[in-house]
Amino acid sequence: MIAAWALDGIEEITAGADLAAIIGDAIARSAEGIRSGDIVVVTSKIVSKAENRFVQADDREDAITAETVRVVASRTNPRTGRTTRIVENRLGIVSAAAGVDASNTPEGTVLLLPEDPDRSARFLAGALRDRFGVDVGVLLSDTLGRAWRDGQVDQAIGAGGVRVFEDLRGHTDAQGRELSVTLPCVADEICSTADLVKGKSTGRPVAIMRGRGDLVGPLDLPGARSIPRTGPSDMFRKGYDEAYADGLAARGEAPA
Amino acid sequence: MIAAWALDGIEEITAGADLAAIIGDAIARSAEGIRSGDIVVVTSKIVSKAENRFVQADDREDAITAETVRVVASRTNPRTGRTTRIVENRLGIVSAAAGVDASNTPEGTVLLLPEDPDRSARFLAGALRDRFGVDVGVLLSDTLGRAWRDGQVDQAIGAGGVRVFEDLRGHTDAQGRELSVTLPCVADEICSTADLVKGKSTGRPVAIMRGRGDLVGPLDLPGARSIPRTGPSDMFRKGYDEAYADGLAARGEAPA
Repeated sequence: MIAAWALDGIEEITAGADLAAIIGDAIARSAEGIRSGDIVVVTSKIVSKAENRFVQADDREDAITAETVRVVASRTNPRTGRTTRIVENRLGIVSAAAGVDASNTPEGTVLLLPEDPDRSARFLAGALRDRFGVDVGVLLSDTLGRAWRDGQVDQAIGAGGVRVFEDLRGHTDAQGRELSVTLPCVADEICSTADLVKGKSTGRPVAIMRGRGDLVGPLDLPGARSIPRTGPSDMFRKGYDEAYADGLAARGEAPA
Repeated sequence: MIAAWALDGIEEITAGADLAAIIGDAIARSAEGIRSGDIVVVTSKIVSKAENRFVQADDREDAITAETVRVVASRTNPRTGRTTRIVENRLGIVSAAAGVDASNTPEGTVLLLPEDPDRSARFLAGALRDRFGVDVGVLLSDTLGRAWRDGQVDQAIGAGGVRVFEDLRGHTDAQGRELSVTLPCVADEICSTADLVKGKSTGRPVAIMRGRGDLVGPLDLPGARSIPRTGPSDMFRKGYDEAYADGLAARGEAPA
């Protein structure tokens, strides 16, 4: 049995806010409290706000460019003239607009992702462990689109004191055969669970999941930085049009 | 607050099994029972078994080919000689091996996906509604890899009486601006939640999630068939190597 709920009473987060204290206070006020094995899922947006990752909105395209390590694909909608850029950002995450966020921010500003989401998650986990004397984990979530599936799901971009993968390799199925390729990304699944109680527009950016204490461990467990899969082994390292253009150019001929 | 738990006591499912009765009996034995608004998440594998979707294992590659509408990408590991095929299957789902499953099946056999997962989900939802007199939804889940992220997450491949997307388009953020591109795929998030309580090797293939009754509706809601995004608008309709080869061939020259 797992349970998940959102914390009430977390006000708008501003630059320099002591997020560990704010989340801790919300936990202290909650009926459910906090226990060893709980996993606290924090919308990365409020971490960005506390870390003052605001940029002027008229620099949005510049901000995306600055966060981009590599353009994976871009496509301009012929109707609207708007260009969607799928990029790999400095954290290795492939997403639209490099995680630069223009919703739920003060007018005229956009928000970059936290500078180092794993470090922020570990810091928050450490602070909550110290304050409440319990072993808890922290995940930072972001809302990501997916190749080949419509809509978005919340996934993990930062992790502190939580196993991001449940390694079943070497385990066996009911017939005794090895589950050779199974590596559930439980950190992503927990962030998706948290989204079901946080919602997008309700001002409840922090949720707690209880019931999978087996996934909580030392603060120096590998972070969410271990989830992105990029580089030469990535079969989808460029979009169709971009890879096609590479092929065309390989014969010294420019795209038509 | 949401809660999720797996049902105990569901034995190995065989061809022709009355899955609605088996799941219903497990619910009837459970302490939590079932209530209107509950969402029952069923591992698609047991639906496949009940529907006798077994194929002889020496036909595995043939089975994958038969389920494949289109090869998206393939890559042979130079060390092992094994080829990974990412394909679009007849349901529009892009995944490795077209969903053909070789784990947790009787020796010598592999298992295809249910013939029509949305129809199966609607049938199960209808049967549970009739038996218990409550409005519940059913999702069929499968374990899917992702582009650009390691590991797998459980996602929805069938839906009966559950909204698969929570449509927030037109809603506003805390600053009153429209959440224009937000379309959470709640069906996928619920299947990920269920995976956290079902596990992969524990023989607990059915879970119930309680607390999001707002997502349960008529049995003729759009199914999970509305989730896959394929066709010309898909920026990743082929892998890098395949798209590159298309570009190379575009001038009448075969790939080197």
